[in-house]
Amino acid sequence: MTYCLAIKVNKGLVFASDTRTNAGVDNIATYSKMTRFVWPGERVCVLLTSGSLATSQAVVNALYLDLENPDAEIDLRKAKHLHEAASYIGNLSQIEQQMHAKAMEKSGTSAESSFILGGQIEGQPPEIFMIYPQGNYISASNDTPYLQIGEHKYGKPILDRIVQASTTLEDAARAALVSLDSTIRSNISVGPPVELAIYQNNRINELFHQTLTLDSPMYKSLQKQWTQGLKRAFNRLPRFDWEKKEAD
Amino acid sequence: MTYCLAIKVNKGLVFASDTRTNAGVDNIATYSKMTRFVWPGERVCVLLTSGSLATSQAVVNALYLDLENPDAEIDLRKAKHLHEAASYIGNLSQIEQQMHAKAMEKSGTSAESSFILGGQIEGQPPEIFMIYPQGNYISASNDTPYLQIGEHKYGKPILDRIVQASTTLEDAARAALVSLDSTIRSNISVGPPVELAIYQNNRINELFHQTLTLDSPMYKSLQKQWTQGLKRAFNRLPRFDWEKKEAD
Repeated sequence: MTYCLAIKVNKGLVFASDTRTNAGVDNIATYSKMTRFVWPGERVCVLLTSGSLATSQAVVNALYLDLENPDAEIDLRKAKHLHEAASYIGNLSQIEQQMHAKAMEKSGTSAESSFILGGQIEGQPPEIFMIYPQGNYISASNDTPYLQIGEHKYGKPILDRIVQASTTLEDAARAALVSLDSTIRSNISVGPPVELAIYQNNRINELFHQTLTLDSPMYKSLQKQWTQGLKRAFNRLPRFDWEKKEAD
Repeated sequence: MTYCLAIKVNKGLVFASDTRTNAGVDNIATYSKMTRFVWPGERVCVLLTSGSLATSQAVVNALYLDLENPDAEIDLRKAKHLHEAASYIGNLSQIEQQMHAKAMEKSGTSAESSFILGGQIEGQPPEIFMIYPQGNYISASNDTPYLQIGEHKYGKPILDRIVQASTTLEDAARAALVSLDSTIRSNISVGPPVELAIYQNNRINELFHQTLTLDSPMYKSLQKQWTQGLKRAFNRLPRFDWEKKEAD
């Protein structure tokens, strides 16, 4: 499995992903699930992938092939809007899945992949989209300003409590890291290192990117502080009536 | 869906369950998923149910029928060990599912149910078991002293961080409530009121039980304190390098 998420706040976008892939529990590997495209001053795109690694890689390869081909009808750089790029990625994913559909059906396995695409095209607002295995897609809303793919349940409660459109970019990034860390602790199919990308609106020249291993000072300190903070919060929870009486 | 859990700590057992059942999102109802049996001085049993409501209710009804029937080969009171009772419940569940298997298959729906059974028989150690839809069952371990059925992912991170065998009964109960509350916030198929039962080892006369609505002072205060505590913990997380520089 995988866990990737993107957050869209008023100030910009945050992307985070784990790097564990597995075919069964005895075949675990580390792959980046975040692909970044920066055409300075023109457009910034980040793609997160989950599901079949073969399909995800084929789609990323097709994106690069189209970018090299001046005759390509559409590519990530030619798409007029980000939603056009989302639709294009959905098509690539469907083409790849259908190519192997018969063989996959025979083996009872799935070639499905999900994607998150986010970024900004110069002169247009920044956006994030989730692209379903079927090729269609949705964008985030102001009320729920995040999108998740893969093992999304473990890390959802903290996002629901913390993330709003008005959250700062840095807080959104910390919430993404806590969400990933909670998932990593509870599910072995999601694992470190963690990749983090932060995009500040209208700064089409730069995309902050960091790979955090378990030994990275930032990640280590975040894990420690969060565990301590949670324990402190837990210890302050209200007592049952009989505990109060015992304390009297 | 449903979310139920049981925790086994050194001092005793904690059980908690939500009360939402749904057939689609437009057909939501409130049902207790916790059935308690106390034979003072003899044995205490708590049964939690998730999955098909029809199967769960049929199993609970069969338990009561067998208890009324002096000729029943086995019932909850006659079982020599709790694992024998778990096996008996697994059988009842399988019998009920097989009765409707053909019709369920036709309609493409499932009659599967999962159960958690816990308690203590006089002179024996307290135990908790999870009974699979297939009728087999497992007990909790010392390393992972809790069992969950239903929507278990949202509420798992907090259990993984807090609950150990040495946790006090009251802290285990608070962890169960936080775990349920996180799930309720993130998934509409799990809803209040919440039922909580606490059993202290070797007190075979009593089983503390409480139904907590959103308006219950304990639940309200727990929600508020936890939200505040989490925000406080979040605000203390480490800053990124550029935030430190900006603060200088």
